[in-house]
Amino acid sequence: MRFVTAACVAALATSGLVAAPALADEGMWTYDNFPSAKVREAYGVNVDQAWLDRVRGASVRLTTGCSSSVVSPQGLVLTNAHCVIECVQDLSSPQKDYVKDGFLTATREEERTCPGMQAEILTQITDVTDQVRAATAGKAGQDFVRARDAAMAQAEKAGCGDDKALRCQVVSLYRGGQFKLYKYRKYADVRLVFSPEYATAFFGGDPDNFNFPRFNLDMGFLRLYENGRPVATPQHLTWVSRAPKEGEVTFVSGNPGSTDRMLTVAQLETQRDLMIPVAQLQRSELRGRLLQFSSESPEHKRIATDPLTGLENSYKVFFGRQFALNDAAFMQAKRAGEAELRSKVAANPQLAAEIGDPWGEIAKAQAAAATHFVRYRQLEQAAGGGSLLFNYARDLVRAAQERAKPSAERLPSYADTRLPLLEKTLLDARPVDPALEQVYLEHWLLKTREYLTVDDPAVKMLLGRESPEGLAARVVKASTLGDPGERRRLWEGGMAAIQASDDPMIQLALRLDPPARAVRQSWDSEVAGPTDRAAERIARARFAVYGDQVYPDATFTLRLSYGKVAGWTYRGQTIPHFTTIGGLYERATGAEPFALAPRWAQAEAKLDKSVVYNFVTTNDIIGGNSGSPVVNARGEVLGAAFDGNIHSLGGAYGYDGTINRTVVVSTAAATEALAKVYGLNGLVRELNGGRRR
Amino acid sequence: MRFVTAACVAALATSGLVAAPALADEGMWTYDNFPSAKVREAYGVNVDQAWLDRVRGASVRLTTGCSSSVVSPQGLVLTNAHCVIECVQDLSSPQKDYVKDGFLTATREEERTCPGMQAEILTQITDVTDQVRAATAGKAGQDFVRARDAAMAQAEKAGCGDDKALRCQVVSLYRGGQFKLYKYRKYADVRLVFSPEYATAFFGGDPDNFNFPRFNLDMGFLRLYENGRPVATPQHLTWVSRAPKEGEVTFVSGNPGSTDRMLTVAQLETQRDLMIPVAQLQRSELRGRLLQFSSESPEHKRIATDPLTGLENSYKVFFGRQFALNDAAFMQAKRAGEAELRSKVAANPQLAAEIGDPWGEIAKAQAAAATHFVRYRQLEQAAGGGSLLFNYARDLVRAAQERAKPSAERLPSYADTRLPLLEKTLLDARPVDPALEQVYLEHWLLKTREYLTVDDPAVKMLLGRESPEGLAARVVKASTLGDPGERRRLWEGGMAAIQASDDPMIQLALRLDPPARAVRQSWDSEVAGPTDRAAERIARARFAVYGDQVYPDATFTLRLSYGKVAGWTYRGQTIPHFTTIGGLYERATGAEPFALAPRWAQAEAKLDKSVVYNFVTTNDIIGGNSGSPVVNARGEVLGAAFDGNIHSLGGAYGYDGTINRTVVVSTAAATEALAKVYGLNGLVRELNGGRRR
Repeated sequence: MRFVTAACVAALATSGLVAAPALADEGMWTYDNFPSAKVREAYGVNVDQAWLDRVRGASVRLTTGCSSSVVSPQGLVLTNAHCVIECVQDLSSPQKDYVKDGFLTATREEERTCPGMQAEILTQITDVTDQVRAATAGKAGQDFVRARDAAMAQAEKAGCGDDKALRCQVVSLYRGGQFKLYKYRKYADVRLVFSPEYATAFFGGDPDNFNFPRFNLDMGFLRLYENGRPVATPQHLTWVSRAPKEGEVTFVSGNPGSTDRMLTVAQLETQRDLMIPVAQLQRSELRGRLLQFSSESPEHKRIATDPLTGLENSYKVFFGRQFALNDAAFMQAKRAGEAELRSKVAANPQLAAEIGDPWGEIAKAQAAAATHFVRYRQLEQAAGGGSLLFNYARDLVRAAQERAKPSAERLPSYADTRLPLLEKTLLDARPVDPALEQVYLEHWLLKTREYLTVDDPAVKMLLGRESPEGLAARVVKASTLGDPGERRRLWEGGMAAIQASDDPMIQLALRLDPPARAVRQSWDSEVAGPTDRAAERIARARFAVYGDQVYPDATFTLRLSYGKVAGWTYRGQTIPHFTTIGGLYERATGAEPFALAPRWAQAEAKLDKSVVYNFVTTNDIIGGNSGSPVVNARGEVLGAAFDGNIHSLGGAYGYDGTINRTVVVSTAAATEALAKVYGLNGLVRELNGGRRR
Repeated sequence: MRFVTAACVAALATSGLVAAPALADEGMWTYDNFPSAKVREAYGVNVDQAWLDRVRGASVRLTTGCSSSVVSPQGLVLTNAHCVIECVQDLSSPQKDYVKDGFLTATREEERTCPGMQAEILTQITDVTDQVRAATAGKAGQDFVRARDAAMAQAEKAGCGDDKALRCQVVSLYRGGQFKLYKYRKYADVRLVFSPEYATAFFGGDPDNFNFPRFNLDMGFLRLYENGRPVATPQHLTWVSRAPKEGEVTFVSGNPGSTDRMLTVAQLETQRDLMIPVAQLQRSELRGRLLQFSSESPEHKRIATDPLTGLENSYKVFFGRQFALNDAAFMQAKRAGEAELRSKVAANPQLAAEIGDPWGEIAKAQAAAATHFVRYRQLEQAAGGGSLLFNYARDLVRAAQERAKPSAERLPSYADTRLPLLEKTLLDARPVDPALEQVYLEHWLLKTREYLTVDDPAVKMLLGRESPEGLAARVVKASTLGDPGERRRLWEGGMAAIQASDDPMIQLALRLDPPARAVRQSWDSEVAGPTDRAAERIARARFAVYGDQVYPDATFTLRLSYGKVAGWTYRGQTIPHFTTIGGLYERATGAEPFALAPRWAQAEAKLDKSVVYNFVTTNDIIGGNSGSPVVNARGEVLGAAFDGNIHSLGGAYGYDGTINRTVVVSTAAATEALAKVYGLNGLVRELNGGRRR
């Protein structure tokens, strides 16, 4: 599944040379630098500005980490089931498990708001590189980071003012090579319309995740609301319920979350030797805890389903990344790419003088990264280990501290332009499961003690004379932050309310804050600052050498990729480009995760088994692209991208069009299922251009 | 803890150059090649043959993976608490938890036999290199492996005949450089005399494991029995209850389990990039399951204590190994060592011609290792995932198949000379915990499906239409292999009984056997065979270049290491060489694993807090050395080695005497505790040369 906790990775093979101009079908292109000429040449399709504007205007980013698209004039949004599963889980209860049973609405009145979810449509891109550059000129280390972040926040403020319907975000593209202001129309009331049963959306579960052939109705529908009414969306994609044709051109418009294709070899080695192994080992242990937790009772299984699905997906993604980097040939290709760029720079004395030795500077920062990483991770980056209550506490504490300062001097996540979404995320009501909270918090405290050691001052401050297990139990039991009213009180009360609070989770977050900020400062000064400053010059070198025929690393902002419907051949075996609904019934064993949902078992005779269920394309995507519309040359939607094949698991570092594939759930199958399995004819009518009812 | 599931590893720094002659204090020397001259020069101590014979004759190997020593004339054996914890757990029940409470005996009648444990004292070493070489001459691949294994089994048979009091074992030393026949006097009835409370033996738990300062009474006592009576052991070490002196010479006589110091760089890269990561990720997930399992109920906590302790120890060991290999400087030193040996070989044309290119051959075998490893691991090497019932089933199935063949044609573990210990292990009564069995078996099936994929023929054969969870539950519930009588029936009934059995665990083992044997054959032919054959020639090269001033990699056979009592200095911080009993009380917080056992809390006023509790020495040891006597120049026992410091975690690959340390529990503390905490004056009397009572 390609949501944003996921990146993508190739266990097996990737060419991995992004220093050089993009290969055929490669690239996650910004809308303001799409290689239309190349596409025309390769596919004979004319992607003009009108086409781009039309597709962009229907492309929707979900702040929860996914992509989606508007597919009706009444604000109906197509995405993946795995992009709404957190919402479905939040709307469920011990009495009603929509994750298991699916969430079906017969009328608009049954559509329900997804906590914490905001939808955003990109309306404008403006270059602000010069003003950010001016702010950072001559600065280094933490000063560099602060000046840059302040300039970005300032540009955001200037771009959107106080308009509550807009969101402005400055994006660093090409790792500091460009800074662009992205302006969005935002929708803070997003309601759930449809999600299939878990057994249907995730048929094959973790074993089949990132594999193909696949048989998943990984599709969900949302609707944009404003002032309690559906938003009118004249700009939407046309839904076509037909099978994709082999070789036909496809475009994916969505928000790839993060790639590391432009990292230097030194940075990749740090990922390989330190960052990924440490994170994966902890993830793996937590996975074991959640698996065992799930086996304890049906209710534990219910509440752990969504978290476990997400965790296993991330685990698989980083498994692929780790083994891509462990592949000597792959790293050799990366080394060759870097050497080529460096030699081209060296051959141009003026450029060489301007660029200096950013590769050396980044290599030097790796020693600092090795020194600080584990501490930075445990105390700051991954603090709380996924505990919702802890996250609330830390955001409340930090927001109270930061809001007392001028916006430009705050930690970037608390700048004025970031506060509306933070406030929504903090204050929206969501269920909190104490048993799960205990698992997360205990796991994090145990690992923090393990990695930093018992005698570390921060660990001593966190634990006092308590055990991780005991502290977690006490704090989870007594915290009242699960109550949105209490969170609002602390949010509005600022530092005075925080300091007066006897909530033990608030006190834990307060206790952690000084050492967390200290290591963050070391990280910014010695790692992030020098790295970002050097990376800007590598970006400049790349532009100078390769022109604009390169695309930036993914940044969870809107991109367009092109490709075609195509299977692939690997080690002599050819995988066809599609599966059918009939294949689902053949693969079902009756045992989870290969068991059919009851509705599907009952509907078997009614369904056209020849309908294309899932298909694959050569589009270059990554985590965050989940839910992206897959559109044809006319800009009509053929499906929603939901995964990559196993070969694409190295996609964080490179793309190989011969075997990397995007996996898509077809509109054809969706129409068939909505009508015949779910009996949602109103929804089908709306998709086909009518009104729901 | 340094028992044999553990190897040792250096997260931080090791010199790692074992191709060259050993550095000061480095080496796990065989008793027939001990560098007495070097020791005399360094420490002024004369280790003559009489000294060696005396210490050897009191050194005891425990087949469960530890070392120990005879310390009284009545067969009393000193080892570590962590070396007897499995026995203590086996003797416990839901009604009586000896792990938690300690196992104390007032009289000999209360001493109880440890299931599956055999004690062995080395009596003779004979060189059989020539006969093994003759058998393998001109052979390659699997033929080479088979011929060698058959020749080894034959030499064992010839060495011990049918004498049931003896065990003969041919050991490959220097990775095939020498083959030696080790003859042991064996004791199959080993009884538990004493083990402290878990809170005392493992104070500080996993967080303090491999750290120092330490405060562990990691000490246990066993007694050798024969014909229902204690064995007379005139040859034993003298117990001295005095503090070790800084700088005094120390010898450790024990059985280091396994080191990889002589591996080629290509082999180390395969460990680093494939074998260790895969195993650690699975271990980490299982750890999470067991941690969560332990939290479910006091009874789950009780039954999981021993397995979790062992698993966390292995995890930490391999964590250290992984990060030692991930250290570029460390690998560079390994590369330099290999290059030096190769250039010295190349400089001698006759030697070069004789040796050929074993490094190249081993590098080539790594491609085959990459192809087969995961399959080999899941189906053969780690099959069953730790399930005791599965292990019983597989041994019963394989033994029935193999015993039908002539000894020389069997899988090595089923040769005639190996059967007595196998039979004991299989037929001794041990408790089986179905809930734990479910965790192990389910985990293994899940990971096997994950790594080999759903569509793999072996996975399909294993699972059929069942889920891993469902299959594990069905099989664990219905198997009767927990009954030693049933195991005996199948052991004695041979293949006919196996094939007639409707035990589902037997059926699972039968189903797994063909694909498991197939991948084992691929492994032997393409990886083990070529590697072992090449390694023999590297050993020859090493002898030719460096003479006999090198020691072989550890093989869980008796070795002697020398060193001295000494703290160390790292990054400007100096760690003293000892801790005191008083330090225990200072470190205690009251929360696990830093809570005192009740007896210790009560005894505080009675104890002499200045008594040395744990101390460190420069001896070079590794997992398997746990329980080894640490003796002084006179051959008196000063303590039992039980751990290494954190810097020694790279010990599998090299030794750095400036910071690598052995951690020892002192006889002085043991005497103080036995008398004042446990009131075991009879045991103290026996240790001091009297009779117990």
